[in-house]
Amino acid sequence: MANEKFVSQIADIETDFPQWYTDVVIKTKLVDYGPVKGTMVIRPYGYAIWENIQKEMDARFKAAGVENAYFPLLIPMSFMTKEAEHVEGFAPEVAVVTHAGGAKLEEPLVVRPTSETIIGHMMGKWVESWRDLPLRMNQWCNVMRWEKTTRPFLRTSEFLWQEGHSVYATGEEAERETQNMLRLYEEFARNVLCMPVLVGRKTEKEKFAGAVATFGMEAMMHDGKSLQAGTTHYMGQNFAKAFGVQFTGSDGTLKYGYTMSYGVSTRLIGALIMTHGDQRGLILPPPVAPVEVVIVPIAQKKEGVLEACNALAERLKKAGIRVKVDDSDNSPGWKFNEWEMKGVPVRIELGPRDIEGGRMTVFRRDTLEKGDGYSLSDAEEIVAALLGQICKDLYAKADARMKERIVGADTLEGLLGGVNGGNFVRAGWCGERACEDKVKEFAQATARVLDEKNDMPTCVCCGKKAKHTVFFARAY
Amino acid sequence: MANEKFVSQIADIETDFPQWYTDVVIKTKLVDYGPVKGTMVIRPYGYAIWENIQKEMDARFKAAGVENAYFPLLIPMSFMTKEAEHVEGFAPEVAVVTHAGGAKLEEPLVVRPTSETIIGHMMGKWVESWRDLPLRMNQWCNVMRWEKTTRPFLRTSEFLWQEGHSVYATGEEAERETQNMLRLYEEFARNVLCMPVLVGRKTEKEKFAGAVATFGMEAMMHDGKSLQAGTTHYMGQNFAKAFGVQFTGSDGTLKYGYTMSYGVSTRLIGALIMTHGDQRGLILPPPVAPVEVVIVPIAQKKEGVLEACNALAERLKKAGIRVKVDDSDNSPGWKFNEWEMKGVPVRIELGPRDIEGGRMTVFRRDTLEKGDGYSLSDAEEIVAALLGQICKDLYAKADARMKERIVGADTLEGLLGGVNGGNFVRAGWCGERACEDKVKEFAQATARVLDEKNDMPTCVCCGKKAKHTVFFARAY
Repeated sequence: MANEKFVSQIADIETDFPQWYTDVVIKTKLVDYGPVKGTMVIRPYGYAIWENIQKEMDARFKAAGVENAYFPLLIPMSFMTKEAEHVEGFAPEVAVVTHAGGAKLEEPLVVRPTSETIIGHMMGKWVESWRDLPLRMNQWCNVMRWEKTTRPFLRTSEFLWQEGHSVYATGEEAERETQNMLRLYEEFARNVLCMPVLVGRKTEKEKFAGAVATFGMEAMMHDGKSLQAGTTHYMGQNFAKAFGVQFTGSDGTLKYGYTMSYGVSTRLIGALIMTHGDQRGLILPPPVAPVEVVIVPIAQKKEGVLEACNALAERLKKAGIRVKVDDSDNSPGWKFNEWEMKGVPVRIELGPRDIEGGRMTVFRRDTLEKGDGYSLSDAEEIVAALLGQICKDLYAKADARMKERIVGADTLEGLLGGVNGGNFVRAGWCGERACEDKVKEFAQATARVLDEKNDMPTCVCCGKKAKHTVFFARAY
Repeated sequence: MANEKFVSQIADIETDFPQWYTDVVIKTKLVDYGPVKGTMVIRPYGYAIWENIQKEMDARFKAAGVENAYFPLLIPMSFMTKEAEHVEGFAPEVAVVTHAGGAKLEEPLVVRPTSETIIGHMMGKWVESWRDLPLRMNQWCNVMRWEKTTRPFLRTSEFLWQEGHSVYATGEEAERETQNMLRLYEEFARNVLCMPVLVGRKTEKEKFAGAVATFGMEAMMHDGKSLQAGTTHYMGQNFAKAFGVQFTGSDGTLKYGYTMSYGVSTRLIGALIMTHGDQRGLILPPPVAPVEVVIVPIAQKKEGVLEACNALAERLKKAGIRVKVDDSDNSPGWKFNEWEMKGVPVRIELGPRDIEGGRMTVFRRDTLEKGDGYSLSDAEEIVAALLGQICKDLYAKADARMKERIVGADTLEGLLGGVNGGNFVRAGWCGERACEDKVKEFAQATARVLDEKNDMPTCVCCGKKAKHTVFFARAY
């Protein structure tokens, strides 16, 4: 009954997924709305997920030899205009500082929407010789893009992200890094977020403003829509020429460098919520869950119960597991609901009879399976194995759903039917912008990424010979 | 001879300390100037120090039960004016966003100089009952204060920091937390930065705009000037009343909460440079040094040398020590100079004869002592012990200098002579603002903190009975 009450607070996941999402992120205290329209406050439970994402991602960057740095928030307006496509893409959504220190500024300053320009400027200052290359840096920071329609984590005027920027002596190296970072993101999505993704090249229409080529990873949300979860960009010499990133080669001649960049953001939190969640609320992948195991005492006022719960928590902590004992005054049923909604992967219930028998009851949030009689003395091994199994199962479930929901289409009507049914649609495309625009107009679907396997014979729109095979979908 | 060349690139530390500082931070690539006046770029070597500071500080906050969160960068201008003293203190130095998304904003938005107002607003939304208290949060973020005179790390228009904000049901609890966090900072300064500090209450003139009381920690720089290295603030109900942070007490009545805040910033990097550095450049405290041990191969082209260096590095890494092998083409002498300037605490030199004899040569950056014949097989223990000893010695050296350079004064002339000689001056003060202003005018010295030991009988300025004993100093 208590359970019913909780469930009723969250909108139906099948019939009103947008409201389900809002209910879940607000009620679980991941996030709240900021006072300025379109801004969000990331609350401790949400920020702890971001910290885990950062920790895992940052370790991968460091292992790959990338170093962190920090570049200024404010960018001179004149920098934005140095790369023609870049300013066209970003100018409409920048926030501008016009006054500071009580006076009007001589030149307006843009709050960074992304940092290619200012980092390009500094690279131009730092790079002199081929010996200085490659230069590979990353920064964790806030960025701002003034958006009309916003949703917590998915699209807000300010968000947190990492942006990596590298400059190489040759285009081949920069292109290779663009691929390497895409693979790093894919591996991260799989192993840390337990989230399958499609990766591939973006169309000209969908690429980053100023890039030669953009590559993305796309994840399928519960409602069958796609979410762009990370991108990598090969810039060629566009930004190097705009900002004078030149070096003396080993042959003594002056050359421009080749740059690339890559980024993921707090949007990943939205992605994992909409990939794994169910009617009861969040289902957090263990590698990023702020609490991996919650221990709920049963009859907690009975002698020895809380002590046993705390002792178990200490043992799990020592084994490197993030654990919490809920010793609040609430009833066990209330606690079950609360922590299920908050998506804690594993719950252990421990009462006087369990303790006496050296046993514990274990509940899996993802499958809702509950079993008693687990050996208390083997808790570390049991929990570690279970967390690992949950990762695998979460991935497998999401992967099976995505594969089931990728359908082919030869016609616009088929494509429309596919996306209406909550699918990604795999279809041929002639490569013309007009056909891409037509698909958008007809089916409100966009080209998410090009498939490496290029086997569709004809364009889904014009029927001419296909140049690419594309994953089309509605997208967040 | 090579050494001479290096040394000559850095201005004299005794006769031109400001230029010494600039030379060191730029030449060691800790930092560079950003394109907008007063901004800095924190380069990888500098940012790695900040990451180590963050890691150590964040672990302390988490152990104390403080949770991280993230609040928006942009604050409505109207928020700033809700606390009268606060707006007076910060309005002159804020940067203001007036346009965004291609249109003029209805209300200008302030780039946060500090977040009491916006966090107060959210606390007002979140706190309802005494059960919600205390609420203790921290954020790691960028802030902006438009300064006229700027210097990298010490004073820049944008800097990175942490700001902790708590709300309690009673003033006693909030005051206690203000003290606890001051002690946490003091312990951090001692054990992580190897830096002695004076802690105590600030005068009304020097307190945070909007606080009831501010407490600070002050460190003595190489030139005898003081640097404010961290502050904690007790706000009473000032911000709670301004932002409606009210809760229903256990007795059923509605009350205002009591808030406090605390912060340290990238300024700490400036502090440790100016505390420990010498004529050769940086001397980094091991707990925050990006590289704790550099291994320099001698005759590195000889068979087995690089292999032995790399094997040693692997062993030290496994022991949790941050280590780097410099296998570049530069000469050993060049490498010695480079890493001495960059302040790496320990250098190990390893050549064919050392390897054959199972020995290594060890150099201490802080004392410039070098010894050969250290057992290679005991490297982990030897290096770990040495790093610990360096911490202790760095602290002891700085502490002895600070204690030597705290002098007493009974008159303004005595105070002036004291600060002219590069000292902190301990003197009585009647508590009147006029006398504090007079000291500033006469000796260009400010009241850094009040001493808990209050034993000076008369005011250094007016000669009346002293109310406080104050540490006066010139300050950064």
